[in-house]
Amino acid sequence: MIKNILKPQTLKGFRDFLPTEKRKRDLVAQKVKEIFELFGYEPLETPTLEYASLLLGKYGKEADKLLYRFRDSGGREVALRYDQTVPTARVLAQYQSALPKFFKRYQIQNVYRADKPQRGRFREFTQCDIDIFNSTSPIADAEIVATTYFAFQNVGYPKIKILINDRQTLFRYLEPFTNSNLNIFSLIQSIDKLEKIGNQRVIEELIKKGLDESQAQMAINSITEATLSKNLAEIIKTTILLGVPKRDIIFSSSLARGLDYYTGMIFEVVLPGYAAGSCGGGGRYDKLIEQLGGDPTPAVGIAFGFDRMVEAAEYFKIISQETRGTQALVTVFDQITLKNSLKLTSELRKNKIKTEVSPTIEKLDKQLKYADKKGIQFVVIIGPEEVKKNVLKLKNMKTGEQKELSESELIKFLISNYSN
Amino acid sequence: MIKNILKPQTLKGFRDFLPTEKRKRDLVAQKVKEIFELFGYEPLETPTLEYASLLLGKYGKEADKLLYRFRDSGGREVALRYDQTVPTARVLAQYQSALPKFFKRYQIQNVYRADKPQRGRFREFTQCDIDIFNSTSPIADAEIVATTYFAFQNVGYPKIKILINDRQTLFRYLEPFTNSNLNIFSLIQSIDKLEKIGNQRVIEELIKKGLDESQAQMAINSITEATLSKNLAEIIKTTILLGVPKRDIIFSSSLARGLDYYTGMIFEVVLPGYAAGSCGGGGRYDKLIEQLGGDPTPAVGIAFGFDRMVEAAEYFKIISQETRGTQALVTVFDQITLKNSLKLTSELRKNKIKTEVSPTIEKLDKQLKYADKKGIQFVVIIGPEEVKKNVLKLKNMKTGEQKELSESELIKFLISNYSN
Repeated sequence: MIKNILKPQTLKGFRDFLPTEKRKRDLVAQKVKEIFELFGYEPLETPTLEYASLLLGKYGKEADKLLYRFRDSGGREVALRYDQTVPTARVLAQYQSALPKFFKRYQIQNVYRADKPQRGRFREFTQCDIDIFNSTSPIADAEIVATTYFAFQNVGYPKIKILINDRQTLFRYLEPFTNSNLNIFSLIQSIDKLEKIGNQRVIEELIKKGLDESQAQMAINSITEATLSKNLAEIIKTTILLGVPKRDIIFSSSLARGLDYYTGMIFEVVLPGYAAGSCGGGGRYDKLIEQLGGDPTPAVGIAFGFDRMVEAAEYFKIISQETRGTQALVTVFDQITLKNSLKLTSELRKNKIKTEVSPTIEKLDKQLKYADKKGIQFVVIIGPEEVKKNVLKLKNMKTGEQKELSESELIKFLISNYSN
Repeated sequence: MIKNILKPQTLKGFRDFLPTEKRKRDLVAQKVKEIFELFGYEPLETPTLEYASLLLGKYGKEADKLLYRFRDSGGREVALRYDQTVPTARVLAQYQSALPKFFKRYQIQNVYRADKPQRGRFREFTQCDIDIFNSTSPIADAEIVATTYFAFQNVGYPKIKILINDRQTLFRYLEPFTNSNLNIFSLIQSIDKLEKIGNQRVIEELIKKGLDESQAQMAINSITEATLSKNLAEIIKTTILLGVPKRDIIFSSSLARGLDYYTGMIFEVVLPGYAAGSCGGGGRYDKLIEQLGGDPTPAVGIAFGFDRMVEAAEYFKIISQETRGTQALVTVFDQITLKNSLKLTSELRKNKIKTEVSPTIEKLDKQLKYADKKGIQFVVIIGPEEVKKNVLKLKNMKTGEQKELSESELIKFLISNYSN
């Protein structure tokens, strides 16, 4: 073992998740997984490293620069996972005969992008995707939207709104405004900003892109007045039949979503009251898998904005209770009463109470301080006196209150006070 | 988007986990996590990439060659996580004041080693560690052993045995047999093989290492006849008070564990009936964190053999029931009865029954085939006739049986048949 001074720092754009933060993230992941499985999605995990050739050129030229790419010791060009869609496209091609015809999968893994770090943008972050492959039916679109809604509901956000639109409508209404310099995707990208930056600035942007002012205004009017397509009406109806409240699905004719590859329904999740923006979005992308080199594979899915979901859960204070760690610390007075402390610890754990026993014998003061630092609310004190009287002393670290209880009273109390 | 033929292959030593396998892994992880939290351990996550300087020289010269190491686009030398101990040592140094005095953490993340792949050895694999930092008390040793035992029990293995020993005993009994050519660690490494390769071959090995035959035999006798140290006796007593059955902790005076850094108690988990070997091991390592460049930090912990645990769980057939995916497929007959199918799907899900609705409208035959391929046991058929009679047809895909039920009968049946 060569000695080496430990440099206590993480790389820029990379994060440690200490217990309090990690617990919140695990809980959000757990809550969405529950719904994914209830709705029939199956879990998938792919490797962190892939052949670089699999990823190169799949995300556009700009993205190629953001790949973490290197030559391994065997001389292979390899790259770190950049998203979950391309590896899934590989899985679809590689295990075709082993997979069910309609592959419904969820995937929650980290991805890596050598991007400029900034607020809310990291070089390693968690992606959380669900997709249904090989169905062109509106049932699949509706299933994705409904799953999304109930996943957010299961985390516990107070209000959830789904904004929804149809790319085909955008194509049809905006086609007349394209020209040899302004293609449909560029036009859509500007229209997508209507909600964020307002009419006037979108017009300015469209003028820069080559429309005259009246054309720009007409393009916007045309989209604003667009009506529900037959396809989208059917998807919305189906989503409502799957249990999503009608008032929470909102047709938004100017919703466009940034990515080029959507071909049909598109949607976004908004949490009213949380201002940071959309917490997830997706839609139908029937051509992408083929463009990536796979077989023609219709697909519909959503990418959850995992970091934002965790931030929003914190903002709405909806996970603070459930993410509490250890509930009780059992103190150890001395070598003689140690066995009483240990037996009690074992008993509390049998009753599913998250319990720690002091990992050393030291002054009570110090044990209380440890509980406080770790955020443990209840400390159970057993000294020679308590052993003699066959009672326990319970100290509430939040209120300072202290009372004597029998073992069964203590267990009852801790079970019933877990969510207080 | 540049078109590129998809090369459907993973890198050697890397694995995809398709749903059936992934579900098993998730379940084992979930079961051990439940116990870790019940016992007061807190979750930690560290980045996949670290400064290479943090990892280089920390695992020995041979290991340096196994690091996945490269220069990122900003010119930094970086490396993929090789284990969880060094990053945790960094966390201890970096967040000292934010962490409780006794840091009890669990960590379940993937690590990367450019090792020669072979059966059971991969280049990306899951490590699952628990450790208690900063306590020298036998209470901490006992907590680690007890947590380990109950974690295995919670996964459901039929029998669990803990082999336990004390490095100090090995040091004391073997010291007289060391010489300038044969150090204590080399001696310990040979002794560790007694169970596996037997007396005769260990003697041969020790002769090669420079002992004569009688010395070799005496060293072995000396270890075989070694008795429990006072320290180990106390740890075992404490572990039993924490609820571990006495019969399942076995003092094994020849247990040595390969790694050099252990300083006190060492232990291993064995699942009788599962022959592949130990499913986890650990011990006390009071000097390692300091050797890695951190502050002096006594520590005790265990590394669970995650892949073996999953394999053993399969071997004992203890997780097949719980890892089942979707329980019921609701078929869709046509556009008219679609709403009945959707409402029923929604109702089943409200009752926590993992349910899928056919993602498209097609012939019943094909829908049954889909259920079969996906391993869904129950198919609920709703056609115009069933709608008229207000019943449902339930088909058991395993037995071929078919019967008519009301909606409430169906729900009752599916709930009570979930673990059959």
